[in-house]
Amino acid sequence: MPLGDNLGDKSDSRYCGVETEFNDDMPHVLSYNINGGFDFVVAPLMEPGYRASMVNSANRESSVLPFAGSDLVLSPAQWSSHVVGKISSWIDLDSDDDVLREDSEIALKQELAWASHLSLQACLLPTPKGKSCANYARFVNQILENLNNMQLWLRIPLVKSDDNDDDSVNGTSDGMVVEPTDSWELWNSFRELCEHHSQLSVALDVLSSLPSVNSLGRWFGEPVKAAIVHTDSFLTNARGYPCLSKRHQKLLSGFFYYSIQIVLSGKAVHNLPVGSSASASGQTDNYTQQAQRHEIRSYLDYVGYLYQKMEPLPEQEHFFLLQLYCINVDLYLIMQLGYRDFLQSPLQPLMDNLEAQTYETFEKDSVKYIQYQRAVSKALVDRIPDENASTTTVVLMVVGAGRGPLVRASLQAAEETGRKLKVYAVEKNPNAVVTLHSLVKLEGWENMVTIISCDMRCWEAPEKADILVSELLGSFGDNELSPECLDGAQRFLKPDGISIPSSYTSFIQPVTTSKLYNDVKLHKDLLHFETAYVVKLHRLAKLSPSQAVFTFTHPNYSPDKSNQRYKKLRFEIPIETGSFIVHGFAGYFDAVLYKDVHLGIEPTTATPNMFSWFPIFFPLRSPVYVKAGSPLDFHIWRCCGSTKVWYEWCVTSPTASPIHNCNGRSYWVGL
Amino acid sequence: MPLGDNLGDKSDSRYCGVETEFNDDMPHVLSYNINGGFDFVVAPLMEPGYRASMVNSANRESSVLPFAGSDLVLSPAQWSSHVVGKISSWIDLDSDDDVLREDSEIALKQELAWASHLSLQACLLPTPKGKSCANYARFVNQILENLNNMQLWLRIPLVKSDDNDDDSVNGTSDGMVVEPTDSWELWNSFRELCEHHSQLSVALDVLSSLPSVNSLGRWFGEPVKAAIVHTDSFLTNARGYPCLSKRHQKLLSGFFYYSIQIVLSGKAVHNLPVGSSASASGQTDNYTQQAQRHEIRSYLDYVGYLYQKMEPLPEQEHFFLLQLYCINVDLYLIMQLGYRDFLQSPLQPLMDNLEAQTYETFEKDSVKYIQYQRAVSKALVDRIPDENASTTTVVLMVVGAGRGPLVRASLQAAEETGRKLKVYAVEKNPNAVVTLHSLVKLEGWENMVTIISCDMRCWEAPEKADILVSELLGSFGDNELSPECLDGAQRFLKPDGISIPSSYTSFIQPVTTSKLYNDVKLHKDLLHFETAYVVKLHRLAKLSPSQAVFTFTHPNYSPDKSNQRYKKLRFEIPIETGSFIVHGFAGYFDAVLYKDVHLGIEPTTATPNMFSWFPIFFPLRSPVYVKAGSPLDFHIWRCCGSTKVWYEWCVTSPTASPIHNCNGRSYWVGL
Repeated sequence: MPLGDNLGDKSDSRYCGVETEFNDDMPHVLSYNINGGFDFVVAPLMEPGYRASMVNSANRESSVLPFAGSDLVLSPAQWSSHVVGKISSWIDLDSDDDVLREDSEIALKQELAWASHLSLQACLLPTPKGKSCANYARFVNQILENLNNMQLWLRIPLVKSDDNDDDSVNGTSDGMVVEPTDSWELWNSFRELCEHHSQLSVALDVLSSLPSVNSLGRWFGEPVKAAIVHTDSFLTNARGYPCLSKRHQKLLSGFFYYSIQIVLSGKAVHNLPVGSSASASGQTDNYTQQAQRHEIRSYLDYVGYLYQKMEPLPEQEHFFLLQLYCINVDLYLIMQLGYRDFLQSPLQPLMDNLEAQTYETFEKDSVKYIQYQRAVSKALVDRIPDENASTTTVVLMVVGAGRGPLVRASLQAAEETGRKLKVYAVEKNPNAVVTLHSLVKLEGWENMVTIISCDMRCWEAPEKADILVSELLGSFGDNELSPECLDGAQRFLKPDGISIPSSYTSFIQPVTTSKLYNDVKLHKDLLHFETAYVVKLHRLAKLSPSQAVFTFTHPNYSPDKSNQRYKKLRFEIPIETGSFIVHGFAGYFDAVLYKDVHLGIEPTTATPNMFSWFPIFFPLRSPVYVKAGSPLDFHIWRCCGSTKVWYEWCVTSPTASPIHNCNGRSYWVGL
Repeated sequence: MPLGDNLGDKSDSRYCGVETEFNDDMPHVLSYNINGGFDFVVAPLMEPGYRASMVNSANRESSVLPFAGSDLVLSPAQWSSHVVGKISSWIDLDSDDDVLREDSEIALKQELAWASHLSLQACLLPTPKGKSCANYARFVNQILENLNNMQLWLRIPLVKSDDNDDDSVNGTSDGMVVEPTDSWELWNSFRELCEHHSQLSVALDVLSSLPSVNSLGRWFGEPVKAAIVHTDSFLTNARGYPCLSKRHQKLLSGFFYYSIQIVLSGKAVHNLPVGSSASASGQTDNYTQQAQRHEIRSYLDYVGYLYQKMEPLPEQEHFFLLQLYCINVDLYLIMQLGYRDFLQSPLQPLMDNLEAQTYETFEKDSVKYIQYQRAVSKALVDRIPDENASTTTVVLMVVGAGRGPLVRASLQAAEETGRKLKVYAVEKNPNAVVTLHSLVKLEGWENMVTIISCDMRCWEAPEKADILVSELLGSFGDNELSPECLDGAQRFLKPDGISIPSSYTSFIQPVTTSKLYNDVKLHKDLLHFETAYVVKLHRLAKLSPSQAVFTFTHPNYSPDKSNQRYKKLRFEIPIETGSFIVHGFAGYFDAVLYKDVHLGIEPTTATPNMFSWFPIFFPLRSPVYVKAGSPLDFHIWRCCGSTKVWYEWCVTSPTASPIHNCNGRSYWVGL
């Protein structure tokens, strides 16, 4: 039974599982727990006492393995929807004891083969026993190589010792350097050994004490599929019911947000008030009358309560504002949720012509045009004093007019400020020009608007402009070649003319995003690892605040102007974050349209409710491991050739990566 | 003029160059230096004072660049054989000064384009100016992407500060950690950024003081093409002539051995005795009479003297012994020199039948058979007391008899010890059996030798053997499936019978070998990075002594025997070595034939003058950077399936690599 309703959430985070002990009677296990309100069980598949080495080798072939029931005791749908297999927790493939190691290999192989036979969706692998897990990883890697669709969840306790305790970091005992414990390192070794296999993921064991917020954040970029919350991690509220600390609550919100399923584990450790049947959240319980109440139902109820009272998703919090602005909520949701972590190749706006559907979508982004209207209004007022408003006509050119939204915003600004306007709408796409003509006719703008069907870089303007309005920005600001286009158009701007936007700056930050890395890797080629993608980032960890990269200012009258750029950035990540892995860099832009009117997607200053731009993602060919406290140095170049513009990028610290996209061999934007 | 003669050396180390200053008159530069005894010049191509930014931009296109002469002043052969281009040393592509950076980019581009136009074999790139070299590397990487065959030699000073000075390692000044200086790190960053490009190599600047021997060793695995020795690094001998310290002499021997060309640099700093014209080595100088004596000729003479008195190559030191054993010296030299660093796929001895040529070559390895004869002799004497020698016949089976060399060795042992022998020669290759029959007839062994044309794993022997003799060893001991074959043959060995060999052990050590890495990379696929190669290792740095890996003992009567193995090895490399890169692992074997008679190729205990086995090389898919003082953990598994045997391997420290060759997907030996 899903945890309840939460606005718009259709993800797996609605479901909650429970970890059970071995029981031969699987139908009972399932009915007890499903009736108790859980959606699935994490159940051992084999009797925990069984060891291959205890069976006489002559009998080994004839004997029946002590599995929990035959495949017939549940329907195929029940096995696959409601059971996660729990591999025997005693197994230890890195033990020094040869017998134990051999028994472990046999058990792991038999249990995974059985789980695979049952078509389970996932199996929970026990936590590696020591710091070394190479043999365990080698064995799992061999199995992954030939596995069906089953996921393997490696159980990792959520622990990290405090780095501030200097003794534990640098202290020596018996001549050995004692490293602080960080279970992330164990996971990282295991998955590196298994080559970041997409079917290997994490089940986090959430214990009563939690590591620092910074270090928790890393996990959201990792493929965490489940969080196992132990009953003894719960506190007791004033009424005697289980509840969680504020920090645990916040962590669970994160799990819900990132579609990580909760699994409850352990026995009831709270003595509930006698005769009580109401749940902690005050809801009535439909099941208590008809069936035995589940032993840990009160914990489940509390998790359901947290889920239902969860803060709305960031994407949803502006619903009322959206309605206020008459924004199409469905479209907005599609843009914000439907495209999550979906990699798109950036547009080639100069080489290709946009399609009608693309114009249609972007024109609905009212917020963007409101900002443009505000910028034009301010520029008009600055340019023409009130006393000249009725006598002076301002020449405004919209370069890259598309199907006219900026023409409309400019005319509205003129009307709002009472200024007289003459508009040239310059557009290179002949298909968009058709629409422009019909718009002008429909709106009766014939006296004010002149349509020019021409590339702004070639057009010979009959007069010079007071104001040049453009929207040629990409997710990374200059990546759709706004600098080159506006340099070309600058010829017909008056020396004291205004460009809207007047400047724009790109921003970048390092991220962990196992999801996107694996999506890029699917292509099995260099080209896709050297391409920047437009992507609605969701399942990722932002490891450091973003930093400014390239700035372009218009108009640009510097004598030896070049649009080539080089930037070196150093990201200092707090040592308490622990070590982490960088899969790539997330990029954004912020544009100053005019004076204090800006527009952008940099997370800390993003224009609310705007959906025209997703971030950009620059991948790394090999994920870079950064040890706790080490700085991360990133370099990026904007290179210009005679026919194309491209970026090259690399990391030089903690270790040097190859230079990506040398000479724009994989990814470039045509001029 | 080559440095002189040294037994068998036909490599580039015979040649010596000289670094010159800018001179417009290239024919003069060349004739002065060639007549002075040098083989090539390292000469600046462009006037050092020239800066693009100083030229009026209007004139820039029309003006002639101040190169040293036109391409016509020398013949194409002279340019390509005798001139290495020296790129202007002032260039600094990572300067904070934008003008300098831009001038540097222009100069580097112009000079390399000119060098390329002249078809020079190599250009010397100046040392990066600071610790950061990302922009320099990016620019060079772009050029490498489209370069003709020209090599780029990055000039790197041979410096490394002393790590034993604890203050410099961990001390802080102004809150910054002061890292020790190690120019290898600079090189490593640069080449990582350029993706280990095979046309990017190193020219080492040898200064008057040298880093530790351990740290020097690293460089022999790197693509060092030239060593620039400065005149002020020379000492003065008793007669007033320049000479080098013992440590410098040893280093130069290394350069000669690894075919690294010497380039002399600098002015004469020794005042030679007046009127002297004899060189330091006492040779008469043919050139002093006919031409102006070269200013630094005495330094060149000294280098020539060192070259000529160089220790014979390790491969050559046993020439006399070879002749003593009647070993074909030419064959030996081909095996030792001709196959240097040539990657060969290992044999599939069970699946394929060897060809006659292969038998021919290996049968010439007399040393091997002498060892077998010694082992059989000792075993015969142990088995049969003198008093029973004439009455008891020993049953000896040669399994894998090939064309008979072990049969011969066994019969010679019997003769030598006066024991009576009955030999079964078991061989699966029907082609070899033909030769065996004719050998037996020719030698008159019909009464002593029975030939069995059968796979030893299937043969039903008519009686049991006292002694089982085999030579099924690969470079890594068990890699040609000796364990599986001998397990199969053990059925027909008496319970107290003797196996020769009685055991064998594999060994492994980490190596830097840029050469082999680039050769593997050429294939551009995963398969070749997950294959172990048989290779006569030459141009590599051995970073640590080898360690034992797997041991197999025969006969093996343990109840639950398995030939699967797993070994974890930790290599602790002295901190004074500095950081280094591991391209893979070199493997060897040592076999105990009988008691103290052994046979093997592990470098410290290798059987002299034996050429049947080259080492084995396990590559790593991505070279692993190991920071100074960090341990290197290596894991290797021997896995057995029903139809094949294979290895998997990985590194887990300092960082985890993928598991190589999962399930034997790339490389395996068929059963």
